[in-house]
Amino acid sequence: MSRATTLEQVAAHAGVSRQTVSNALNAPDRLRPETLRHVREAIEELGYRPDTNARSLRTRSSGLIGYCVVPQRAGSVNAFMDEFLHVLCAAVERTGRHVLLFTAPSGSEGLAVYEDLLARSAVDAFVLSDTQFDDPRHAWLAEHGVPFASFGQTAASTQPGPWVDVDGAEGIAEVVRHLTELGHERIGFLGLPEGKPVGDDRLAGWRYACREGGLAESEDLLLRCVDERTDGRRLAARFLDLPRPPTALVAANDALALGCYAELTDRGLRPGADVAVTGFDDSPSASVVVPGLTSVRQPVQRIAERVLELLDDVMARGVTTEGPGELFGPELVVRGSSAGTTGGDPR
Amino acid sequence: MSRATTLEQVAAHAGVSRQTVSNALNAPDRLRPETLRHVREAIEELGYRPDTNARSLRTRSSGLIGYCVVPQRAGSVNAFMDEFLHVLCAAVERTGRHVLLFTAPSGSEGLAVYEDLLARSAVDAFVLSDTQFDDPRHAWLAEHGVPFASFGQTAASTQPGPWVDVDGAEGIAEVVRHLTELGHERIGFLGLPEGKPVGDDRLAGWRYACREGGLAESEDLLLRCVDERTDGRRLAARFLDLPRPPTALVAANDALALGCYAELTDRGLRPGADVAVTGFDDSPSASVVVPGLTSVRQPVQRIAERVLELLDDVMARGVTTEGPGELFGPELVVRGSSAGTTGGDPR
Repeated sequence: MSRATTLEQVAAHAGVSRQTVSNALNAPDRLRPETLRHVREAIEELGYRPDTNARSLRTRSSGLIGYCVVPQRAGSVNAFMDEFLHVLCAAVERTGRHVLLFTAPSGSEGLAVYEDLLARSAVDAFVLSDTQFDDPRHAWLAEHGVPFASFGQTAASTQPGPWVDVDGAEGIAEVVRHLTELGHERIGFLGLPEGKPVGDDRLAGWRYACREGGLAESEDLLLRCVDERTDGRRLAARFLDLPRPPTALVAANDALALGCYAELTDRGLRPGADVAVTGFDDSPSASVVVPGLTSVRQPVQRIAERVLELLDDVMARGVTTEGPGELFGPELVVRGSSAGTTGGDPR
Repeated sequence: MSRATTLEQVAAHAGVSRQTVSNALNAPDRLRPETLRHVREAIEELGYRPDTNARSLRTRSSGLIGYCVVPQRAGSVNAFMDEFLHVLCAAVERTGRHVLLFTAPSGSEGLAVYEDLLARSAVDAFVLSDTQFDDPRHAWLAEHGVPFASFGQTAASTQPGPWVDVDGAEGIAEVVRHLTELGHERIGFLGLPEGKPVGDDRLAGWRYACREGGLAESEDLLLRCVDERTDGRRLAARFLDLPRPPTALVAANDALALGCYAELTDRGLRPGADVAVTGFDDSPSASVVVPGLTSVRQPVQRIAERVLELLDDVMARGVTTEGPGELFGPELVVRGSSAGTTGGDPR
């Protein structure tokens, strides 16, 4: 049983001193990143669970990291953010803490919830996600000296606190380059509603990759959805009704891309074989539809682990007024939906 | 801002006394279920957040409900359980508490994690899910007088503590009846691995609906998967290679059903038009594939709310040695994949 594992055993397994393991748990900033990673691997391999009771007495901390989940309408799951939460939960546990889940309204209205959790010492720190351009949480938490780390960036020129983000623009740019190599010259973009960091970032990638490849970037090749879960079909229809329709449809997420599948199939066209379609997020649906959906995968495990490492730095050294920030490169996953418009195996 | 809302305003809005609102928050068993539901609606409508600080001082509770998430392999999200967690989190908050997330090994090995959380007074109670036939948690928690409520049943003849479950057998039976009405007589079943409550329950539904309808229930119409996320295609191929293949494939979950789509498409067959296919869970994929996948939807919102109501009863009155239990009926969602094998619009 995992509880039988002792700190001494972890030290022996990692080939380090007892103090080094203790530092990895309680003062990670005292260790070099490689050492910290090495010790954490040993902790994970042995299934060691620190004695958080003693830890709590010593530091008067709750041992809890607050994480706000965005309330969802029934059936509208965001598989990627759910995967992030799972990975985060496991990563937090490897440091002997737990995740406290809560919901809060977005914007300044939600700050009262953060304030309430802090007033009750319910959490020691926060991991923020669903970050908005005008997100007030980062500045507010920094002002109040509350440790946090953010997945995602605000529009502020100097963003307080550490953050990790995915280079969505580069992800979409890679998609466009991939399509260009296949011979596509008219590449339509199905974008998210304006003013959200995630959507604007992905749109920027389409713009610069089109320019880079000398492609048409006319406004008739850009359409934005209102509802990202249901509008893919409608936007695909508008594209296909153009006098010169695009030969490839690049969607800002998988749900929009799968809407394109439905519209194409309805018109007797085959995704991949007749019109290329691509998505973003590599959701579970992407690999089960036929043909498989070419998509962009975010390195969720590395993101969650890095967010926590940065959070530990902040908890050891105090909140920073700016960054540090780290941008992760996403991974293009090519499937049959971008098999080429001139025939070939659509899977 | 929601924090401005007072208990008095909730009382006025609901047309009840201050004490009734207080009871709804702190002693829900003193209210009739209708009253409790009515007051909770008012709490939600006004966005009222109880002063949990005072509450914590009064009861010395953590104000936290523990919930164990099953660690997942990357990319293998269980959308239904994630939706349950979201709904549970929001429902817990409406009673002024929060969810503490943790992971634990399954079986008796995981009990140490529960013990540790209790030893540190980190949680007041647990909501259990991912319930197994030989799940040791229910008996262990009951023995230790720890309040809990379970989503799912063990195989124990007397299961301690309250539970809520979905009648998966009836869900699959409804699918079979629906297919029988369309004229299907050979209905293959793609089952989950043996020995899990969810899978055995769904299989039982296929068996009794086949018997009820006077259909063939021969063993060549039953195949079980090893990996529920990837085996659908392989099992569909085995069915289609039979001398007399089934005309309908009933899968124990959506992932298996979507594997059938891939195999059918590969053979130039159309799901719905040539071979009927059905799933279970009504996952996000079910409504985006073409044709839409007929599936079975579990009433996740009602399940989460009822689990919490039963938990509140236990917290007020103590843990029960048996039940009460409640079985919810799932809902058949008919889409194009069961449009009939003799042609017709496959969507």
